[in-house]
Amino acid sequence: MAQEKKMVEAITSMEEDFAQWYTDVVKKADMIAYSSVKGCMIIKPLGYAIWENIQKEADRMFKETGVENVYMPMFIPESLLQKEKDHVEGFAPEAAWVTHGGNEKLQERLCVRPTSETLFCDFYANEIMSYRDLPKLYNQWCSVVRWEKTTRPFLRSREFLWQEGHTAHATAEEAIARTELMLDVYRRVAEEVLAIPVICGQKTEKEKFSGAEATYTIEAMMHDGKALQSGTSHYFGDGFAKAFGIQFTDKDNQLKYVYQTSWGISTRLIGGLIMVHGDNSGLVLPPRIAPTQIMIVPIQQKKAGVLEAAAKLKEALSAFRVKVDDSDKSPGWKFAEQEMRGIPLRIEIGPRDIENGVCVIVRRDTGEKTEAAIGTIAETVGALLPKMQQDMYDRAKAHLESHIYEATDYESFCDIINNKPGFVKAMWCGDSACEDKIKEDLTATSRCMPFDQTPLADTCVCCGRKAKKLVYWGKAY
Amino acid sequence: MAQEKKMVEAITSMEEDFAQWYTDVVKKADMIAYSSVKGCMIIKPLGYAIWENIQKEADRMFKETGVENVYMPMFIPESLLQKEKDHVEGFAPEAAWVTHGGNEKLQERLCVRPTSETLFCDFYANEIMSYRDLPKLYNQWCSVVRWEKTTRPFLRSREFLWQEGHTAHATAEEAIARTELMLDVYRRVAEEVLAIPVICGQKTEKEKFSGAEATYTIEAMMHDGKALQSGTSHYFGDGFAKAFGIQFTDKDNQLKYVYQTSWGISTRLIGGLIMVHGDNSGLVLPPRIAPTQIMIVPIQQKKAGVLEAAAKLKEALSAFRVKVDDSDKSPGWKFAEQEMRGIPLRIEIGPRDIENGVCVIVRRDTGEKTEAAIGTIAETVGALLPKMQQDMYDRAKAHLESHIYEATDYESFCDIINNKPGFVKAMWCGDSACEDKIKEDLTATSRCMPFDQTPLADTCVCCGRKAKKLVYWGKAY
Repeated sequence: MAQEKKMVEAITSMEEDFAQWYTDVVKKADMIAYSSVKGCMIIKPLGYAIWENIQKEADRMFKETGVENVYMPMFIPESLLQKEKDHVEGFAPEAAWVTHGGNEKLQERLCVRPTSETLFCDFYANEIMSYRDLPKLYNQWCSVVRWEKTTRPFLRSREFLWQEGHTAHATAEEAIARTELMLDVYRRVAEEVLAIPVICGQKTEKEKFSGAEATYTIEAMMHDGKALQSGTSHYFGDGFAKAFGIQFTDKDNQLKYVYQTSWGISTRLIGGLIMVHGDNSGLVLPPRIAPTQIMIVPIQQKKAGVLEAAAKLKEALSAFRVKVDDSDKSPGWKFAEQEMRGIPLRIEIGPRDIENGVCVIVRRDTGEKTEAAIGTIAETVGALLPKMQQDMYDRAKAHLESHIYEATDYESFCDIINNKPGFVKAMWCGDSACEDKIKEDLTATSRCMPFDQTPLADTCVCCGRKAKKLVYWGKAY
Repeated sequence: MAQEKKMVEAITSMEEDFAQWYTDVVKKADMIAYSSVKGCMIIKPLGYAIWENIQKEADRMFKETGVENVYMPMFIPESLLQKEKDHVEGFAPEAAWVTHGGNEKLQERLCVRPTSETLFCDFYANEIMSYRDLPKLYNQWCSVVRWEKTTRPFLRSREFLWQEGHTAHATAEEAIARTELMLDVYRRVAEEVLAIPVICGQKTEKEKFSGAEATYTIEAMMHDGKALQSGTSHYFGDGFAKAFGIQFTDKDNQLKYVYQTSWGISTRLIGGLIMVHGDNSGLVLPPRIAPTQIMIVPIQQKKAGVLEAAAKLKEALSAFRVKVDDSDKSPGWKFAEQEMRGIPLRIEIGPRDIENGVCVIVRRDTGEKTEAAIGTIAETVGALLPKMQQDMYDRAKAHLESHIYEATDYESFCDIINNKPGFVKAMWCGDSACEDKIKEDLTATSRCMPFDQTPLADTCVCCGRKAKKLVYWGKAY
């Protein structure tokens, strides 16, 4: 009775303890299990099906921009990882090392990939000869390993699933345009598919990717006001190309270095999905990403005609991802279970409904119940699911906007960070010493320098020197 | 000019040197690249797109039988790997070991998964309590690592991509039925999707999976007559359940062990695809699996109206995976390149064709050229692609059947194995000593005991003792 044991325990309310609420939801909604490998999680069918839907949507968008998928080895020889100085400094401290293969000690240690810039660069150095070979627009879906000390399901684990795109271009302009294009694809995945509004901008020097010239990010706000970095797109200039010798003969017959980008999203997005839309009854999934969009629950299902009517409803809704729960559990139990698992719509149908030619539709996000004619159920649901998707986005957007504050002096900046969940917009001098001080004082970090740089003030909110950039600040996952 | 350099070198003919032909094709058709990690390959866009199509078809078939996807960690603690005796003996000698994480020596070594029975068993021991929790029908798509000494692209490499299904059942009968069901799914993937006919049967004790009670296999015959084990399905009985303590309370309130299965196919299938269908011009892809099914080649493309007509053709064929090659290469060059990459149909269209309202269709498998009306091109292609798929299967089936021999005495058995490429059907006493002798004498192995066990003779072809089983023998990849 594993299932029943799980369901009788209520989840912690998010107001009482948001972190515990999160842990309870991922466990009780049956998204993950802990494994015997410390810091690594098992992604169960609901969690994985959400990831498959994210993959399907993102992969389609990537391919529409000309990206092709490939697969690189999971191992990186130590000497290869060391070729780009900043990059190895960023990743070596968290690397997992293979030292033995088939009972023999390896001549050179192999790092289990934390990210694959070095492998793609090594590959590109052999593949790219002429401007005709450019651009290279490759991506891979795989898992990566970073030996983190503290871990949380989906948010930070020693192994996680992601995609990593790696492109090479003839000019800096083209590479920068690709960096921006992929950031916009990520914005669309977050906003249109996951109903998560994001703030787009550039990371500061301190927060950028090891080895990048510039890192762009989409930052989402969780229900507790904290930030989740949800996708990043990096512009490398020709730094990696010079370290790895990736040169091509251009149309003018000159030998030139390529310009590169990389960009990634991961199973972290599932953590964001939970913390943006979830409530005290569990997960709430936007219809576009929900593995099951509609669960039909027959009421008094042993009465003649009820299961048949439920099956007919399912048939009428076959354009959607629909199931019938005809298990021998009580309706109340089924409702609680489906709410916990975030299924967007529940349709109840019982003997009296059948007589009246109607059924009852219950929205997971609002709890709203409406009666709908059985004869036109596909049209009703076909209109309701996109509306629910939009409503969920709008609510998350309203939450985001109502939790963005502005500060022009350090005292009010600290007051907001300490007392108001959310992001603070404030001016910054550009010196990482101020970022260090803010992190030290408040455990907050610069989230991004938004693309809209309309200044709030002339001076840095921290040190009072001349301001250079508008920055979103906040506490982060 | 990487592309041009590659294309001017002809591939070795398969009659001259089949192994070299294979290596040339995977390289020149641009399916893989060698990486700086010894024994690991880079799967390039064409190779990976074929894998994606295999995944799509197989995954759909799995899900139709109730299978759900999950993701397990890639690491296995050494103590967990050792829980089932036969299993660890089979896999430990080829394991890659992680000994350090984040600059610290690990307390326990972690094996990079060679297969995940032990992880699934550990998981199931925690998840399964009641008969209500059964069956568990889980699968994962991932890469696995086996530290092989000699490697060949797709056929044997230190890391490869696969799926591994792991199921747990209340009864032995149900588990056996699942083992057989998944073998039949693999047969359909091979025969219907890849146009590769296979022989289905059971592996001998010597050849079965480490830890299994019974292993079932689909065996394909390559163009050179050698066997390729193309998919396996294992029945475990309750052996793993006892080693890992996977018990459930049954309807009769008794505590019982579960019965388990596992089953897998891998990127090896791509090697099979090449060696069954390829020819001296390169790859030949069956339409159902081809990433690009039709390539339109405009002739005299600079003449007015030609590119427009090609674009219109593409539009008319949008129900298929179709591209136009409007690069500045010569038509002859384009033809050779598309043949090398195995594209099923080429459509040529030039100024005179346009005048006459026709185009020329060229089949990759037969080289046959036919003229077709532009106005009804979608119908023509819609009929031709399935016909080509069937023809390719029929040809491979005829090749298989014409290369199966029978032997009832050891002399003729040896003569066939040594001189005739293909499989030999012969009776066997059931003693692995005869398998060892045959391997020693002839480098041939038992491929499978086919489901149809109509006996050929009363005595073992090797030792002359009483025969127990009909066996297919052959040399194998």
